Amino acid sequence: MIRIALDAMGSDVAPDVPVAGAVAAVRELPASHEILLVGRQAEVHEALAKHDIPADRIHVVNAPEVIDMSEKPLAAVRGKRKSSIRVGVELQKRGEAHAFISGGNTGAVMAACTLLLGLHPGVERPAIGTVFPTRAKPVLVLDAGANIDCSPRELRGFAHIGSVYARDVLGRTNPSVCLLNIGEEEEKGNEAVRSAYELLKNDRGLRFAGNVEGRDILNGECDVVVCDGFVGNVVLKFYESVARLFSDLLKNEIDPRVLESTAMNRVFRILDYSEYGGAPLLGVRGVAIICHGNSPVRAIKNAIGVAAQAVESHLSQHIAAELAGDGAVV
Amino acid sequence: MIRIALDAMGSDVAPDVPVAGAVAAVRELPASHEILLVGRQAEVHEALAKHDIPADRIHVVNAPEVIDMSEKPLAAVRGKRKSSIRVGVELQKRGEAHAFISGGNTGAVMAACTLLLGLHPGVERPAIGTVFPTRAKPVLVLDAGANIDCSPRELRGFAHIGSVYARDVLGRTNPSVCLLNIGEEEEKGNEAVRSAYELLKNDRGLRFAGNVEGRDILNGECDVVVCDGFVGNVVLKFYESVARLFSDLLKNEIDPRVLESTAMNRVFRILDYSEYGGAPLLGVRGVAIICHGNSPVRAIKNAIGVAAQAVESHLSQHIAAELAGDGAVV
Repeated sequence: MIRIALDAMGSDVAPDVPVAGAVAAVRELPASHEILLVGRQAEVHEALAKHDIPADRIHVVNAPEVIDMSEKPLAAVRGKRKSSIRVGVELQKRGEAHAFISGGNTGAVMAACTLLLGLHPGVERPAIGTVFPTRAKPVLVLDAGANIDCSPRELRGFAHIGSVYARDVLGRTNPSVCLLNIGEEEEKGNEAVRSAYELLKNDRGLRFAGNVEGRDILNGECDVVVCDGFVGNVVLKFYESVARLFSDLLKNEIDPRVLESTAMNRVFRILDYSEYGGAPLLGVRGVAIICHGNSPVRAIKNAIGVAAQAVESHLSQHIAAELAGDGAVV
Repeated sequence: MIRIALDAMGSDVAPDVPVAGAVAAVRELPASHEILLVGRQAEVHEALAKHDIPADRIHVVNAPEVIDMSEKPLAAVRGKRKSSIRVGVELQKRGEAHAFISGGNTGAVMAACTLLLGLHPGVERPAIGTVFPTRAKPVLVLDAGANIDCSPRELRGFAHIGSVYARDVLGRTNPSVCLLNIGEEEEKGNEAVRSAYELLKNDRGLRFAGNVEGRDILNGECDVVVCDGFVGNVVLKFYESVARLFSDLLKNEIDPRVLESTAMNRVFRILDYSEYGGAPLLGVRGVAIICHGNSPVRAIKNAIGVAAQAVESHLSQHIAAELAGDGAVV
């Protein structure tokens, strides 16, 4: 039995979109998987009543408070003990759920996971992984914004954590890791990146494939791309905006009949970030997935699928083991 | 009379593409503009013979040596005194040309300009500006890779230089400057960016519009976006690869008749980076434009147009004056 807690209030359209995402997910997941919707009980039940689902697959856990997007994370998590984020993470802490998913205040989710679940030994701050669609198989880029300035050792830690995620959740058998840089040559980049290159090159626990440039992220040749959270965050948000710009351009310019064609559908599918189901918070003891506040139903459904896979594959235990390995401490 | 020197050897298809770009440019530019093609005389004349152009508009300047893309910039510029890059920049130094354009070794162009033309007082290294197409008017992003680690003062310098470029070449009357960051709030980002925010906010010679995130670069609301060269380089190359990915996807998936429609043409025009004609090297005494080695003819033609506009608008003199202004030193 796998139980996944979902923040029913962490959405621009709460609780309707999270609830619909949960309903869509249980229809696809095995019968052994249950979802716990965490939020204002009455509202969640009302949203749930619009759907026809088996009562034993989706449960509601009351959390009368909501942490706002603009609240200071730590203060909010400490102050709002009955918030959906805090209650949801506590379910996992008590073993009543195996994963937590939220499209709410990212900083608050990070703070709640760090405070309540704790971090694996060697991890100072969790990293945010993000999966980009590419020409070929998707690529995991981390960190996407949790760690602004990263030491070379932290970058190496991301390489290990990312490799485990690529194996467990993306299904890569021997994942390659690349370092995001401004040139392919070993001596390129700032000091942190140059030192990280040395560490990665000499780390026999990794399949390090060298530096990649911004233009290589989407070529689909690399499984994991490592960078500091400043660069990762800028690139991630930029990518989302480019995909939106292209979609808008096409929608404004092109005959609607062409837009609805199967071919075009494939184009939009590749552009569509929501396919990949949220950003894992990596390094915490447990499973946590962060979604956009404006995630559509399909993105929530996919995030639930990703969370289930992370639980089933023992992602968190594997990350702990990887970090405990020789030379692999973050 | 404006004379623009063009590196005829700085192209994957040299000298044919630069020569064709020069021919296309003189057909559009006023009769007072001449182009000096710098490269291996015999080869350039041979390429030129394929076109029917007035002999007084395009001249050939012999430069028997070529600096390879993989050569160490400084050593190459010092060692190859008869290279097209060195000879081209020397033409400008001697006043025989007003601008230099090259799709060759970027580092060598930077080194040659720095050594031979010199930098404006207050500039330690030139910055590479890059113009991104957006939803609305194009945006200048700098630095795009010349300066890896930037001090807050350097970032402020980019803001001033970028503002002048936006006025002189992009035609913005009162250009706004934004700082690329991972959040809009003043306290976001690493130390350099936070200090830069303070400097920019208090600089009365700038129209500072605050932080922008990666997702805001392409919204067309900002005239100049300032960042360090590591982030700028990653984003620039990433953008180019996304545009290529989208183009490829569309070309593979969509009916060729739709692809050739006027509507689709508009889509590709916006995606098409070559529209904007190369990246200006800013901070040097003079005008220098860097192009991709794989630039198509239209990109070379447009780069010549941009160089002409930079010369006509007295860009270099205006940058010197801006930097000499109170508090505006890089």
